[in-house]
Amino acid sequence: MRVRRRKGAEEHLESNPQYVILKPEEVKGHWQKVFGNNNPIHIEIGSGKGRFITGMAAQNPQINYIGIDLQVSVLSHALDRVLEGQLPNVRLLLANGSSLSDYFADHEVGLIYLNFSDPWPKKRHEKRRLTHKNFLEIYQKILPEQGQIHFKTDNRQLFEYSLASFSQYGMILEQVWLDLHASDYDSNVMTEYEEKFSQKGQPIYRVEARF
Amino acid sequence: MRVRRRKGAEEHLESNPQYVILKPEEVKGHWQKVFGNNNPIHIEIGSGKGRFITGMAAQNPQINYIGIDLQVSVLSHALDRVLEGQLPNVRLLLANGSSLSDYFADHEVGLIYLNFSDPWPKKRHEKRRLTHKNFLEIYQKILPEQGQIHFKTDNRQLFEYSLASFSQYGMILEQVWLDLHASDYDSNVMTEYEEKFSQKGQPIYRVEARF
Repeated sequence: MRVRRRKGAEEHLESNPQYVILKPEEVKGHWQKVFGNNNPIHIEIGSGKGRFITGMAAQNPQINYIGIDLQVSVLSHALDRVLEGQLPNVRLLLANGSSLSDYFADHEVGLIYLNFSDPWPKKRHEKRRLTHKNFLEIYQKILPEQGQIHFKTDNRQLFEYSLASFSQYGMILEQVWLDLHASDYDSNVMTEYEEKFSQKGQPIYRVEARF
Repeated sequence: MRVRRRKGAEEHLESNPQYVILKPEEVKGHWQKVFGNNNPIHIEIGSGKGRFITGMAAQNPQINYIGIDLQVSVLSHALDRVLEGQLPNVRLLLANGSSLSDYFADHEVGLIYLNFSDPWPKKRHEKRRLTHKNFLEIYQKILPEQGQIHFKTDNRQLFEYSLASFSQYGMILEQVWLDLHASDYDSNVMTEYEEKFSQKGQPIYRVEARF
């Protein structure tokens, strides 16, 4: 998600250490201490303005959520939402996908969400797609055995690519939705993007895949 | 494909043994003799009125094709097309999917096409879907190691089901198309159904999956 650079975004993040984990390398292996309980930890890579992660956290108080984004301004908007909701089970993290194993120990993450990830349509940018096998390798490391990725997008080409990428990596597709909003899936929490695109009548694709 | 019962359909098939294999159990293991060459044999399960199989045969003379359908009337229409085209590399077979291993020896088939198969939408009819694991087991037997199934359909639910079914059986998705006619795939041969449905603007789904 690209948003305008926000003035004071960095300071905003730094002044809310109760929600924003500023030195994640120091909590690697100790995330349950951060949350103060032993609940499972689910992360969203590319959490944007935080609508999904805060919605999920409100819906599932027995799960801890970490929203991860690589843009300061974006994350600062997510922080607004977290502050507004005063949710005890959400944290935010400024990081990119390739550094995740610096911040999470092996098997420390229970589930990974990827929502409306940047499609990087050009073939020469394939390695930047968050469902490229290089990322899958990192996800596999921090997830438990048979850990799952739940991925949704409106981008047809990215979804086609990702199904094949998951499968060729050896992952199993548990369930696939080719028009999520026309299905009977009823526990969906929408992202900002999702609302916008589904209103235009575009199908939303979703898959649950496991290692 | 359901078509009206055609009078004389059975006699029509029986009087054209050069194209219609009437006793397939007798040629099991000897299909290359039927064609008189060593070219690979590709089969279509549910070949309907034969537009796809004859189109493929015309496009690829170095491959032998067998169109398989379980309805006499349907197959007799396909025979009309085969007679019209006088294609030396097509045969027709009256059979259902579950009997295939009675008619083909292990690894005798090079590739399997499934096009616009009956979706059998009710859960209690799941086992009738041609992408159910019971069928995959039969296909795996008659295909070579890493043999492929090329499947296309306009039915979203059947495609969702099939992707998961292939994957859970242990097959690998080589490539997926979620809107075939909007893609750059240029060697597509349309079926009767496909032309009808794609003209209505419905996306055509396609997958190449291998064991």
